[in-house]
Amino acid sequence: MSSISNTPESPTARPRVAVVYGSASDAQTMSKAGATLSRFGVAHEEAVLSAHRAPRTLADWVEGLRGRGIQVVIAGAGLAAALPGTVAALTTLPVIGVPISGGALDGMDSMLAIAQMPPGVAVATVGLNNATNAAVLAVQILALSDQELAGKLVTYKDDFERAAADGLARVAAASPAGASA
Amino acid sequence: MSSISNTPESPTARPRVAVVYGSASDAQTMSKAGATLSRFGVAHEEAVLSAHRAPRTLADWVEGLRGRGIQVVIAGAGLAAALPGTVAALTTLPVIGVPISGGALDGMDSMLAIAQMPPGVAVATVGLNNATNAAVLAVQILALSDQELAGKLVTYKDDFERAAADGLARVAAASPAGASA
Amino acid sequence: MSSISNTPESPTARPRVAVVYGSASDAQTMSKAGATLSRFGVAHEEAVLSAHRAPRTLADWVEGLRGRGIQVVIAGAGLAAALPGTVAALTTLPVIGVPISGGALDGMDSMLAIAQMPPGVAVATVGLNNATNAAVLAVQILALSDQELAGKLVTYKDDFERAAADGLARVAAASPAGASA
Amino acid sequence: MSSISNTPESPTARPRVAVVYGSASDAQTMSKAGATLSRFGVAHEEAVLSAHRAPRTLADWVEGLRGRGIQVVIAGAGLAAALPGTVAALTTLPVIGVPISGGALDGMDSMLAIAQMPPGVAVATVGLNNATNAAVLAVQILALSDQELAGKLVTYKDDFERAAADGLARVAAASPAGASA
Amino acid sequence: MSSISNTPESPTARPRVAVVYGSASDAQTMSKAGATLSRFGVAHEEAVLSAHRAPRTLADWVEGLRGRGIQVVIAGAGLAAALPGTVAALTTLPVIGVPISGGALDGMDSMLAIAQMPPGVAVATVGLNNATNAAVLAVQILALSDQELAGKLVTYKDDFERAAADGLARVAAASPAGASA
Amino acid sequence: MSSISNTPESPTARPRVAVVYGSASDAQTMSKAGATLSRFGVAHEEAVLSAHRAPRTLADWVEGLRGRGIQVVIAGAGLAAALPGTVAALTTLPVIGVPISGGALDGMDSMLAIAQMPPGVAVATVGLNNATNAAVLAVQILALSDQELAGKLVTYKDDFERAAADGLARVAAASPAGASA
Amino acid sequence: MSSISNTPESPTARPRVAVVYGSASDAQTMSKAGATLSRFGVAHEEAVLSAHRAPRTLADWVEGLRGRGIQVVIAGAGLAAALPGTVAALTTLPVIGVPISGGALDGMDSMLAIAQMPPGVAVATVGLNNATNAAVLAVQILALSDQELAGKLVTYKDDFERAAADGLARVAAASPAGASA
Amino acid sequence: MSSISNTPESPTARPRVAVVYGSASDAQTMSKAGATLSRFGVAHEEAVLSAHRAPRTLADWVEGLRGRGIQVVIAGAGLAAALPGTVAALTTLPVIGVPISGGALDGMDSMLAIAQMPPGVAVATVGLNNATNAAVLAVQILALSDQELAGKLVTYKDDFERAAADGLARVAAASPAGASA
Repeated sequence: MSSISNTPESPTARPRVAVVYGSASDAQTMSKAGATLSRFGVAHEEAVLSAHRAPRTLADWVEGLRGRGIQVVIAGAGLAAALPGTVAALTTLPVIGVPISGGALDGMDSMLAIAQMPPGVAVATVGLNNATNAAVLAVQILALSDQELAGKLVTYKDDFERAAADGLARVAAASPAGASA
Repeated sequence: MSSISNTPESPTARPRVAVVYGSASDAQTMSKAGATLSRFGVAHEEAVLSAHRAPRTLADWVEGLRGRGIQVVIAGAGLAAALPGTVAALTTLPVIGVPISGGALDGMDSMLAIAQMPPGVAVATVGLNNATNAAVLAVQILALSDQELAGKLVTYKDDFERAAADGLARVAAASPAGASA
Repeated sequence: MSSISNTPESPTARPRVAVVYGSASDAQTMSKAGATLSRFGVAHEEAVLSAHRAPRTLADWVEGLRGRGIQVVIAGAGLAAALPGTVAALTTLPVIGVPISGGALDGMDSMLAIAQMPPGVAVATVGLNNATNAAVLAVQILALSDQELAGKLVTYKDDFERAAADGLARVAAASPAGASA
Repeated sequence: MSSISNTPESPTARPRVAVVYGSASDAQTMSKAGATLSRFGVAHEEAVLSAHRAPRTLADWVEGLRGRGIQVVIAGAGLAAALPGTVAALTTLPVIGVPISGGALDGMDSMLAIAQMPPGVAVATVGLNNATNAAVLAVQILALSDQELAGKLVTYKDDFERAAADGLARVAAASPAGASA
Repeated sequence: MSSISNTPESPTARPRVAVVYGSASDAQTMSKAGATLSRFGVAHEEAVLSAHRAPRTLADWVEGLRGRGIQVVIAGAGLAAALPGTVAALTTLPVIGVPISGGALDGMDSMLAIAQMPPGVAVATVGLNNATNAAVLAVQILALSDQELAGKLVTYKDDFERAAADGLARVAAASPAGASA
Repeated sequence: MSSISNTPESPTARPRVAVVYGSASDAQTMSKAGATLSRFGVAHEEAVLSAHRAPRTLADWVEGLRGRGIQVVIAGAGLAAALPGTVAALTTLPVIGVPISGGALDGMDSMLAIAQMPPGVAVATVGLNNATNAAVLAVQILALSDQELAGKLVTYKDDFERAAADGLARVAAASPAGASA
Repeated sequence: MSSISNTPESPTARPRVAVVYGSASDAQTMSKAGATLSRFGVAHEEAVLSAHRAPRTLADWVEGLRGRGIQVVIAGAGLAAALPGTVAALTTLPVIGVPISGGALDGMDSMLAIAQMPPGVAVATVGLNNATNAAVLAVQILALSDQELAGKLVTYKDDFERAAADGLARVAAASPAGASA
Repeated sequence: MSSISNTPESPTARPRVAVVYGSASDAQTMSKAGATLSRFGVAHEEAVLSAHRAPRTLADWVEGLRGRGIQVVIAGAGLAAALPGTVAALTTLPVIGVPISGGALDGMDSMLAIAQMPPGVAVATVGLNNATNAAVLAVQILALSDQELAGKLVTYKDDFERAAADGLARVAAASPAGASA
């Protein structure tokens, strides 16, 4: 479907992105972040850590991020989604928040809890459950100083245009008169 | 069910309406637009084009609309539903927007994204998933300079009244005393 | 500000658009529709009629629209904004609905009441209080069979592009280095 | 479950309440109104009439209500739920509105469309899908001049208290210590 | 403005409607109920009683309603608007609830708290702050067994139609061509 | 999963917490309160009582709470969730409210109905359906004067931290390079 | 207005309640908590600490609470209101959260961010801006082991009933016929 | 207030961030972005460009960004806020979106329109009107390859902690007993 092929990389590639989420039940939604990062050949680490249930373990984990070479954090959470903001409060690395819609309020609660930060402590919020876009954003950030990644992003976008144009051409070929009624 | 019969037309009838939507997953919802246009014998073309994923292919497609004889565009989209507004920004043809409720917020996000345009660039928004009404609106617009279509619209509305009156009559016949308790 | 000058027209020009709203308190919001129609030289008539308070007077008024040469109706209403839908139920002319935000719920109630019509009876809903866009939409519809109006619409859109480009040029000229910090 | 037994009545009892709704798909929800009216021995008539699709048939039907002896109207509708307000606009009988949650917005659209009427034309709105309460309200209104109904209402309420007290007694009997841990 | 003149009545007319609200700050909003009742010559009594702050005083007051000849209760409340439902729980008289928008959530909280009652205990909810409609509803209920009131209601509605028709006539007279542009 | 084992206790332990909810259909949601109280060895009693359907039985039940040794009340309700506020109005014991999402509005109606109390009569509201947290809150309150409970709470929280840290350790052990791509 | 007089106390009374909020702009709203605590003679301390801007200073402050004799924490916050949840994550004391409506979303964002905690870490949420009720709740909790406070609470509630009954009596005295029309 | 002093820089410093918004009326809100960037000594350029009114001028402007050395785009918009998404569709640079609350729906419409992007085209959304955080995020991104900026960010965060700790100390010094009642 895409002309970007997953880049082979050595198993010991150092992770540049950390993906963290508040509950094991968020794993499936958040797996799209990992899948997209892998598609771009960006190594990442993953952790399950609740800001409310394990605040001290989380603080220690954030403390160690920079030392392990992490440059961007992707944090997903539902309900009173404190995780992204708590991580952002504890680091100066860019933090991308993924609101997850598992609660009774369709995720609106988590989107507001993640986006509405006080001036000075920012979270880059993406759409509900849209872990793919969190990864794309992380790749865009890393690509600012990584020419190879920058090139892959261009290909990634061109693929979308090409697929759309191909679709139009197929429809035009199928309906000689170009119309249905 | 209706006294309008689909008008037979030559397979090469030139489309007057273009139906476009952002993702193949919107096809089923949007198919009601095509079905209703066909019922009125209005030829149309159809395309799948995302404003965000394929902006250049979309711009080219909009550029060609008037040359192909299109008079009205029906654009359906979900989430941050940019498609109708993007098309409206690029053409002076009337654009009808169909908000689609596939997202986690019940479609409220797409309805607002479609309706709340800045002064000067308008989109005619219909109800959530209501592609039928987008087609009815397109027919009403075309009927202003097409007497045959205007006549079909009158019949279309009369059918609703007749069906309702028939329903009342059936109920009255079934319950001689006109009441149940 | 714009290169479209209001077209002089004879005082007896026959109105092609009817603007109706439910309460005298909506007059100021709805006056933007009249102002925009005038800018395009489109004659219109105006009426204050509540669907809930004067249903019979409204029905008579709708009955007479086509005879008076009206082609498009713009209907504004707030709260349980029944006016646009009631007019749409009684005519086959295209009806454009303007939700008005005068109620305690920020106009969300009127937007939903106007947009969420049943299949078969459509209202073209614009943004909250956006009577300007209702008029633009009416002009776009009339322009399908009025070459002069079609030309004015192209100019209207070009003016927006030109104003934007001029703004960029002014900024670039003012900041020789193109930057501020 | 209740000590009110359905009152036998002659099949020709004249209906005092009319139940109307906009679409056959509302029949199941609205059937609770009929069931509750029957439980109180109040005869009613029922009709399916859309305010938007069959406005003239509806107006005729409303015209005839008083002549047929109807004293209260229960009107259910979903989406841009115009039916209750349209009926209220055409009669001075009390109209009770039942918002129905069949749309994509959980029924919030229909609740607002029914409740937010302009001053002077009122609809008595009950909870979402709560046709039972529409019937209870109708019975309470009729009971003001019907001693037998008034008595049944007292019994109806007492039954709730008795059932609650019986429940407490059963629990107390089952857990001798009155506690669980 | 209206052809209904306030009916003179003896100062000792027995109140048929009770108007109650939860806080003195609701008095201005609720005064529209009293004004409308007076316009129809319906005597009423008024009380300030909070369901949450004075539950026992409220229960005593409800207990005495029927004895004092009250037939309908109008109850207004904001926030977690328990008053209408609490009154409805304690009486079989019809209770009309007025949600008041004084809280931080624009009154949506009070509308839901009033409307969403459990099956069996009903409140007739009107629009936000719309105490006028609560009174109209009360009058419609009383008019079922009061011919004089029924006549006044017909006049009240006719006045709306007449005012609307007069408005149309004035506009037509003012613009000989019937149009503006 | 946890190092707190349920404390064995005599079957006649006197309940310190009362759990009450408005409808039998709330039993499953509310059972998490009982389960959590039991986990901490806190005896409780349980009742099904609707504020709207059985106001007098409820008032009697609240009257008896203090005499039976109850110190905290947990009240769950959906829709126009009056139960927690009604209990709070009738007692000076702390009342914890659990909004239940069984209605058509996702529970937002019950959350607002429970939380938005007037100044002076408070309900401690927890998240939607979160009866577990209502019990945790009750335990925290009781623990202020119960050293054993206070100790269990510390263990309860430590368990969360330990589980999180163990999870991190497992992941680190499994991915020697600490990364995936 | 009330028969509870503020209890004189020595200036060195040890605070039992801590009031904390995220921004100096919350001080006025939160001052109602202090005023109500003082009315009951409950000493408290106050701090301004943002969970997002000063997470480490906040953690230290929470660490010291129990040692200073604090038994209940009242935490107020607006926007992505993390403060109450962050405090609850770091202590086993009961935490009462006050959502503050200073943001663009009327405080709904802060209410959801405070209430929707994960199971196991609870916050007792009160209504928007309702710091008074946070204090009442704190007093109710402390009163479980403080007879004097318990007595004051009974008086506090009785005052509400008495004021309501007095109001009714005044109205009855003023309108000999008990009615107005 | 802060220990970061604005870095003097040559007037010809090349802008690394572009700030764009849809309407001149957004200038004041968006000026916080420029102010914050300046505080960190990051040069930026600014433009007013509507995605809907000037789509072609916007496309040209986006085309030129990379050539002018721009690394991050901050895009603010209200209503059907298409600008951030449109820019993101046309570039692979990271785009930060600022929803602006100028519309009738409190900005919720713009937040959803900006955040709810389709997978593959991401916008980093910050809180309503929070242009400050957009700038902080831009600085965090640039700091990944700019040691001086990274150092300034650490100071920026430390200032918040220091200010909070100083505030606590001042309060403690002012109230010797540490309490008020």
